[in-house]
Amino acid sequence: MSAWSARQRHQGSRIALVPTMGFLHDGHLALMKEAGRLADKVAISIFVNPTQFGPGEDFDTYPRNLDRDLDLAREAGVDAAFVPRTEDFYLQGFDTFIDQKKLPNHLCGLSRTGHFRGMMTIVAKLFNVVNPDMAVFGEKDFQQLAIIRRMVADLNFNIRIIGHPIVRESDGLAMSSRNTNLTPEQRKTALCLITALKTAQALMEKKEFHADILIHKAKTIITAHPDTSIDYIAICDPDTLEDIPFVDRPALMALAVTVGTTRLIDNIRLTPAQE
Amino acid sequence: MSAWSARQRHQGSRIALVPTMGFLHDGHLALMKEAGRLADKVAISIFVNPTQFGPGEDFDTYPRNLDRDLDLAREAGVDAAFVPRTEDFYLQGFDTFIDQKKLPNHLCGLSRTGHFRGMMTIVAKLFNVVNPDMAVFGEKDFQQLAIIRRMVADLNFNIRIIGHPIVRESDGLAMSSRNTNLTPEQRKTALCLITALKTAQALMEKKEFHADILIHKAKTIITAHPDTSIDYIAICDPDTLEDIPFVDRPALMALAVTVGTTRLIDNIRLTPAQE
Repeated sequence: MSAWSARQRHQGSRIALVPTMGFLHDGHLALMKEAGRLADKVAISIFVNPTQFGPGEDFDTYPRNLDRDLDLAREAGVDAAFVPRTEDFYLQGFDTFIDQKKLPNHLCGLSRTGHFRGMMTIVAKLFNVVNPDMAVFGEKDFQQLAIIRRMVADLNFNIRIIGHPIVRESDGLAMSSRNTNLTPEQRKTALCLITALKTAQALMEKKEFHADILIHKAKTIITAHPDTSIDYIAICDPDTLEDIPFVDRPALMALAVTVGTTRLIDNIRLTPAQE
Repeated sequence: MSAWSARQRHQGSRIALVPTMGFLHDGHLALMKEAGRLADKVAISIFVNPTQFGPGEDFDTYPRNLDRDLDLAREAGVDAAFVPRTEDFYLQGFDTFIDQKKLPNHLCGLSRTGHFRGMMTIVAKLFNVVNPDMAVFGEKDFQQLAIIRRMVADLNFNIRIIGHPIVRESDGLAMSSRNTNLTPEQRKTALCLITALKTAQALMEKKEFHADILIHKAKTIITAHPDTSIDYIAICDPDTLEDIPFVDRPALMALAVTVGTTRLIDNIRLTPAQE
């Protein structure tokens, strides 16, 4: 992979990387197309990274289909796919991790201990192997994107980080590889995530700026479905991810909800209307 | 600095980096000359890194002399010196650190909490800014070198790490910027470090392979000087840094001793004679 990148760079090509865990959907493909618009060559990685799954999480059941992924990537104009084997990528005696104290201590980080540590570490490894000029990440994993931006600035990676808006199904469900694990019934239930977020957004347009009221309304919508369990619903500063009690400035509303046995996340921007 | 490196690489030059904290001595200069033999261009960094000093350590009194350093580096054939300012290099809100669990949990790491975390982080930052083909480190900081090798393998840095043998004063004292803080009396006392190591080595040649006996002998030599305080004396595996009780295979003998108020380190290889 490094040799491919070196050749591209030697020829003056700029490389964009799209890291993925595979089981590609239209959200991933949108990132790859955006990468193709911004750079000369597009590389993706496909690797279900064990170090970002905690005990009891869905590493074993995470959906995989490499042949289909490679076909889809090819169709999306991807030039190279990096598909490391776990035993080659985590060497015997592996013991080096990257971590942060602040940003991981919010939202998903509170229930997924070690998740962002594993994520940062694998992203740094991919950056070092692929050596891209830029990398594209989806905004569905908003916290991940914020943490990567911090890491890139702090560790002086010479890589431009591009966030891409959430890609949704026609009915509004945020695209996710994990959606495939939902039963048809759960798939309908899963719409309550975007409904809750949109309802809060609509309430804000009616001048309701109290975060606790907006969150309560969202919670009511989700708990109306018996097959759901809320991990968190938060309204926070998009940079620090710290809670905002009163939304008098641009904020992020983010939530994580388990539907059946599948944990889903989504988020939306809350922007107070100009007077 | 990155632009300089990109130009060199574009011209096909291979770059060697020698990271330093400045106050250069002949040990540093030997690393730079070795770098010049191995690569086309030599870059050094001069930065007294605050995150690798603990509370109560000698960050404030660490010796500094930038003008002299730049003159010495120039004479040694260095092509570029990277001298970041702390406030430019650790951005507002800096929060990303690299760490390991195993190698730092020996030798200096036991008393210098967080030292290697700060060291790994700054070295990764320097690697990302300078983007060298190789980097040269002295073997006096043997643990540092082992930890960097592990980090480079684990995080897939495409950088060759070169260890350089300890450079000593004519009387055997390992060169160190901190030697300058010794009084003339302490400077004489400081010779007990290499005397202790050499004595253990000589005992081994007489078939004494018990680490506790070798360490006890070394301790006796050092404690004979009233102005010394031993941090540790260890005989360990050069790869894992774990204690070796019986030296039937190549080992490292390492020690840290405070002379007056100056903490000094040194080490020597112990190699059982072939039968």
